[in-house]
Amino acid sequence: MLSIPDLIRKKRDGEQLTNEDIKFFIQSVTTKQMQDCQIGAMLMAIWQRGMVAAEIQTLTKEMMRSGEVMRWPDEWKTLMVDKHSTGGVGDKVSLVLAPALAACGCKVPMISGRGLAHTGGTLDKLESIPGFSVQQSAEQIQTILDSVGCCIVGQTETLVPADRVLYALRDATSTVDSLPLITASIISKKGAESLSALVLDVKFGRAALYQDQQGARQLADLLMDAGNHVGIRTGALLSRMDGTIGRCVGNSLEVIESLETLKGSGTPDLMELVGTLGGMLLVMTGIAPSLSEGRQQIDLAVTGGAALSKFKAMMTAQGVTNETARRLCSAHTDYFSILRKSEHQLELETPADGVVVGVDGLVLAQVLHKLGAGRSRAGEPVNHSIGAELLVSPGQRVLKGASWLRLHYEDPAPTPDQIQLLQEALTVDEKDKEAGQGHPLVADVLLPQ
Amino acid sequence: MLSIPDLIRKKRDGEQLTNEDIKFFIQSVTTKQMQDCQIGAMLMAIWQRGMVAAEIQTLTKEMMRSGEVMRWPDEWKTLMVDKHSTGGVGDKVSLVLAPALAACGCKVPMISGRGLAHTGGTLDKLESIPGFSVQQSAEQIQTILDSVGCCIVGQTETLVPADRVLYALRDATSTVDSLPLITASIISKKGAESLSALVLDVKFGRAALYQDQQGARQLADLLMDAGNHVGIRTGALLSRMDGTIGRCVGNSLEVIESLETLKGSGTPDLMELVGTLGGMLLVMTGIAPSLSEGRQQIDLAVTGGAALSKFKAMMTAQGVTNETARRLCSAHTDYFSILRKSEHQLELETPADGVVVGVDGLVLAQVLHKLGAGRSRAGEPVNHSIGAELLVSPGQRVLKGASWLRLHYEDPAPTPDQIQLLQEALTVDEKDKEAGQGHPLVADVLLPQ
Repeated sequence: MLSIPDLIRKKRDGEQLTNEDIKFFIQSVTTKQMQDCQIGAMLMAIWQRGMVAAEIQTLTKEMMRSGEVMRWPDEWKTLMVDKHSTGGVGDKVSLVLAPALAACGCKVPMISGRGLAHTGGTLDKLESIPGFSVQQSAEQIQTILDSVGCCIVGQTETLVPADRVLYALRDATSTVDSLPLITASIISKKGAESLSALVLDVKFGRAALYQDQQGARQLADLLMDAGNHVGIRTGALLSRMDGTIGRCVGNSLEVIESLETLKGSGTPDLMELVGTLGGMLLVMTGIAPSLSEGRQQIDLAVTGGAALSKFKAMMTAQGVTNETARRLCSAHTDYFSILRKSEHQLELETPADGVVVGVDGLVLAQVLHKLGAGRSRAGEPVNHSIGAELLVSPGQRVLKGASWLRLHYEDPAPTPDQIQLLQEALTVDEKDKEAGQGHPLVADVLLPQ
Repeated sequence: MLSIPDLIRKKRDGEQLTNEDIKFFIQSVTTKQMQDCQIGAMLMAIWQRGMVAAEIQTLTKEMMRSGEVMRWPDEWKTLMVDKHSTGGVGDKVSLVLAPALAACGCKVPMISGRGLAHTGGTLDKLESIPGFSVQQSAEQIQTILDSVGCCIVGQTETLVPADRVLYALRDATSTVDSLPLITASIISKKGAESLSALVLDVKFGRAALYQDQQGARQLADLLMDAGNHVGIRTGALLSRMDGTIGRCVGNSLEVIESLETLKGSGTPDLMELVGTLGGMLLVMTGIAPSLSEGRQQIDLAVTGGAALSKFKAMMTAQGVTNETARRLCSAHTDYFSILRKSEHQLELETPADGVVVGVDGLVLAQVLHKLGAGRSRAGEPVNHSIGAELLVSPGQRVLKGASWLRLHYEDPAPTPDQIQLLQEALTVDEKDKEAGQGHPLVADVLLPQ
């Protein structure tokens, strides 16, 4: 039996850890036998030396087993699905996808996270709805899945405690971007949900974790391998993330855009992601015979209103009053009579005639973060009302002086430098040629064997 | 200004840290702004990525400055000397060298450490003398240096607090054997002693940190570079460490051997190390014009009794009664009427006729550690009476059945496996040829430019 320093030394020297080594590591983390300094050193050794597939699989499984593993009624066993995204700007896919899947007969115990730095969090978005509670026990989750079919909740106290410890320390020790640690963190939590199928939206591009498709593919392969190893049919989508998903960024504004999408007015990019990710899950659960038929079922659930009904039921099941839920889901709602609107709005103007090529999503997200839309440290509050609406879309012809962005802000107000950054985030082709179609949004669809 | 995670990321990615980065690192450690997990990650990043000479120099200097830096009377400025050894089995050089140097006119504020695992510690050895106190304040140290000329003490609370934090965490995080960290730890403490000259005994061989001379030379060069950079004339000795230094291992037994050496009965190897290290310091301080003359002065101080008088005075200055000191230093002492003797002794016999080639010092030290001569964790007590006396020397002709080792033990008693290990630690050449002289003890003498 190794001691903890011996275990650290083994990975420090680049040796492959055995299943027993990894079990000992995770048990020592969970029982707090391993000191924080030792966890920090071990995380850095893993960052430096990496892990082979077998180590990642075992790490994932042992993390999953460090706490409660959910159990579902037998008749749900093939229907349990969830989705994970590596993070996009304006990514409100979950808010539309969860109710759409529920409308197609799936059970969706979606366990989501909060935003950090410029990255938004699904839980923060939902909490801009008065009364919405993301804190639900395992029993409450099962009750909601029984009556509604979907819920979107925070991690429970008992689920994957090892990840809770490691994740907090990874942030402090600059070991977040380690493929083995990313993989085990994501998949262990999904494994503890006892899913039958999982789909991963792995993003690449200017505003994503990976700049290029190759890096995203590598992560997707590791995630699929680990997911399938813990018994979940796991597929992945590689999608481009240069600008924003949809036209709104910011918590309240993204809830409004999600509701508009569920009412049939979604932008094509958002609908494509929802349809493809949902279609993949319907194929993997056997509900749809092919990806195209799966996409059709999802599209129909969204455009036909069934998904909106599920979203409404989910809101009331998670603490929103019937009256608020009804008003948010009715046609021609005045959303800002329910969701808080920022005190100030400012519209930015296009600098020249031309065709909109695109908007740099990363710059937009970073400026909004500084204006209070996101948090710099875990636990800080966010201002749900801060955000931005894109008033133009790529390929659109614009005249100089037309409004292209509506900024929602309070205190602090944007500085001249920030306004400048935002203006530079917009690319307009002044030669006024027809803008090309650019790269497709969905670069690859990977389904398990 | 970097954040702490940014600083960790920089070294993680193998970038060279600036002077400001390193200052920030050490200040964050000293003020406890840096969390333990972050220190663990940083230590591992340094272990993995290393440091260039400029980084090591700055790290050493900033660690030195993290606490009090000692100040001495002007007339001592050229006389302040100390010695550091990278650790040997039966290494009682300090106990003989400090009083010998004092007898030659040096001021020797020797700050030593305690043993860990199979490595012995000078402080533990001295504490086997009833009344000897290694805890002395900076003021007390100056008083003793004034009246005696040498003292051997533990690290004071105010000296190099950053090293205190880092050293404890290095042990827990398996980052002890990192050249930059070793160098900065050793030299920062010597720098805080405000020495004029320092000599390093860097050991290599079976029972040393480095197996080969090349590794020892690399460490010696780094140490000399860092030492000279903080203003200390720093030299180094490369010495072979396969067996033991002298013939005794264990705290009480080594004190007895040191006293016997100070009374003129030292073994040739111990006398060679004391003479060479002392001679180097006398050259570096300008007291002796050449190494050979320096060695002569040291030899004379030891064989003529001047060093014994200094040792006696040091003992009384550090809390030993006059009566105890007098009895320990008189001829024909019954040492065990003062130092505790172990309850049991056992003599091992040579397995065959032949010539003694050598004894594996590492194996001997490891077995003695298991029998209670050393500690497994910092802070644990040690049993001063446990140890072993070698009854033969390399090159000696022995007959089968002759006693070659006297083991001093209490509880636990040695197991048959441990006895077997000890027997195998002895190499006897049964062909009964004259054993070669083997390799010289002192492999190289490096003096500063």
